[in-house]
Amino acid sequence: MFEEQVQLRIPGPTPVPPRVMRAAAKPIVNHRGAVFRELYREVTEQLRQIFQTSGDVALITGSGTAAMEAAVANLVSPGEKVLVLCGGKFGERWAEIARAFGARVVEWRYDWRQGAEPEELAARLAAEPDVVAVFATHNESSTGVMNDIRALSAARRVASTGRRPLLVVDSVSALGGAPLAMDEWEVDAVVSGSQKCLMVPPGLSLVALGPQAAARLEETRNHRYYLDLRAYRKAAAKGEGPYTPAVSLVHALQEALSMLAEEGLEKAYARHRLMRDMIRAGVKALGLPLFTGERWASPTVTAVAGPEGLDVEAFRRLVRQQFGVELAGGQGELSGRIFRIGHMGYAGPLDMISALAAIEQGLAKMGYPVQLGSGVAAAQEVWSRWG
Amino acid sequence: MFEEQVQLRIPGPTPVPPRVMRAAAKPIVNHRGAVFRELYREVTEQLRQIFQTSGDVALITGSGTAAMEAAVANLVSPGEKVLVLCGGKFGERWAEIARAFGARVVEWRYDWRQGAEPEELAARLAAEPDVVAVFATHNESSTGVMNDIRALSAARRVASTGRRPLLVVDSVSALGGAPLAMDEWEVDAVVSGSQKCLMVPPGLSLVALGPQAAARLEETRNHRYYLDLRAYRKAAAKGEGPYTPAVSLVHALQEALSMLAEEGLEKAYARHRLMRDMIRAGVKALGLPLFTGERWASPTVTAVAGPEGLDVEAFRRLVRQQFGVELAGGQGELSGRIFRIGHMGYAGPLDMISALAAIEQGLAKMGYPVQLGSGVAAAQEVWSRWG
Repeated sequence: MFEEQVQLRIPGPTPVPPRVMRAAAKPIVNHRGAVFRELYREVTEQLRQIFQTSGDVALITGSGTAAMEAAVANLVSPGEKVLVLCGGKFGERWAEIARAFGARVVEWRYDWRQGAEPEELAARLAAEPDVVAVFATHNESSTGVMNDIRALSAARRVASTGRRPLLVVDSVSALGGAPLAMDEWEVDAVVSGSQKCLMVPPGLSLVALGPQAAARLEETRNHRYYLDLRAYRKAAAKGEGPYTPAVSLVHALQEALSMLAEEGLEKAYARHRLMRDMIRAGVKALGLPLFTGERWASPTVTAVAGPEGLDVEAFRRLVRQQFGVELAGGQGELSGRIFRIGHMGYAGPLDMISALAAIEQGLAKMGYPVQLGSGVAAAQEVWSRWG
Repeated sequence: MFEEQVQLRIPGPTPVPPRVMRAAAKPIVNHRGAVFRELYREVTEQLRQIFQTSGDVALITGSGTAAMEAAVANLVSPGEKVLVLCGGKFGERWAEIARAFGARVVEWRYDWRQGAEPEELAARLAAEPDVVAVFATHNESSTGVMNDIRALSAARRVASTGRRPLLVVDSVSALGGAPLAMDEWEVDAVVSGSQKCLMVPPGLSLVALGPQAAARLEETRNHRYYLDLRAYRKAAAKGEGPYTPAVSLVHALQEALSMLAEEGLEKAYARHRLMRDMIRAGVKALGLPLFTGERWASPTVTAVAGPEGLDVEAFRRLVRQQFGVELAGGQGELSGRIFRIGHMGYAGPLDMISALAAIEQGLAKMGYPVQLGSGVAAAQEVWSRWG
């Protein structure tokens, strides 16, 4: 097996299409010149389609965490109270960032195998009527749970005052792979990254702001400079970023967003659901326990509980080294207890067949009772039903 | 002329060698896996050679400004006093960031055509004995001035107390193109970026810390998360970054640093000095006024004052569109008054000949009296003397 043939089935960074890599290899252009400004404007317009918003989308050179910090530092002042949905590692990250920037953080901790119940949000806000913003995770890639952002947005109202706190959503591991109608659902801010469903190497992060959030920028008192979204807005008016952007990744993003547009967003979402259903059927057929319940099952990543007696980390190493598929482990307290199969971005049904076959080989080699081909067959059944 | 043939002679981002672009196109790897950890450790070791330090170098996904902010937010607490050398736009940026993060900023403004006089630093510190850190620009790319960092470092002592405030240096547009012996010169922190002399696309920024600066990390009280260098240090111990790094750019950086090591740092510095001397000789031969005096002349970028009556911006457009070389304009108050020729990174003497030839063609076309070939010939004279 060639090292470069290892199939990356982790929840990001994800494989980059050859077409996108070729775009990334274009000669670097002047980030203050006319050629870049045209590129920047086109990409910004393409991004509006993906976020389904008419608002501004800031293109930040940084990891997804940079975009999360930008949302916190620009929308919350020190001393203000925020409610954070903590259903996994990335929910916890919202809480950590908010605390680092001086917010009073109320953590809503719920079962990591499930999402946040929308009805409960209303009750929590009734108990904390001075919450100015709710921070949520669209797709919790640490657990394979997808939250119902539309329902959470609708439920977000303080009954006693009728006021709606801002809803700020981390859609790093969902945007482009699962529906998110920012304007229609009245989500105030959405952050994302290049390296998941958007099929671009890591290094670009995104912050989309609705009108309520945009209006907050001037009011917020918080230390910020590199991630000051006012500077991005001002530069964007000229078709530029405020600082030197990752030009090669912007070239890549333009190409990847063109690919998504050619496929069509609805078809991209359906492809992700198909991959999820194939993986879940295959895992079930192998008798492995799915970590996440049906209702919350993510279309971009599936978490599998390590069966009794299986050394999950040794299993992952074996599957990578001997059978050519790289799976992700658990993070934080789930380390060694689950493995995760990424099925997002530049991937399709045949990749799910490959992943399941490699998992079967690994399980058999580890002495776990498995009927070779049974997971693959179950996935094929799902595929054939999709027509 | 093909659009992709335009020669980018701006002070960054700079052209990327094909070999580096091929490395950037390698398949994306798991940023938490063994393959990436080996890459990360190798790149970190290579970077230590470039910074000439045995200290830690944090690899941050972001523009150079992100690294500047990291230095400020991690080394200065709100209310502390800092002295900022303001000799151009990037000196001013240090001041802006320091103010944004609550520092009391003392600006030392000096003539933008010159560097900071080391003797004067001692006098300034005597007048402000409570300064905790001095922020300086190694190479001011907005003006083509290179500061004498070694002398500034030696002069940095508060006479009355014998105390040395931290010296924090922006070497974004010099590192790899001009000597910077961080440990030997006792510089406490140096920030840089991938897209200048290091020949990598923009998107990675670097912060190297000496022992005094590293010791400050725990003491500093300032809001920070994405750029909290404690998180980078902790992750680096595992051979990782704290958040998803720009994997393709790390691949590129590994290759570019290998190229620099093959050339040898001293030869790379000499190549940049040769390019500077060729450009300056050519510009002088054409009768154009150099913006920066000989003593401070940068080896990576040369600023040229627009001669009387020349529409600098129209001239730049013409040289790009008709003659295939992209020059930079002036920034801020220098906009329309100067143009800048970048000669850093993946460039050599023949590129200087091309740049001067295109400048000559443009001047002639604009009606400026110029003897075609005279600038080129002067540059060739310099080149031939270098042997």
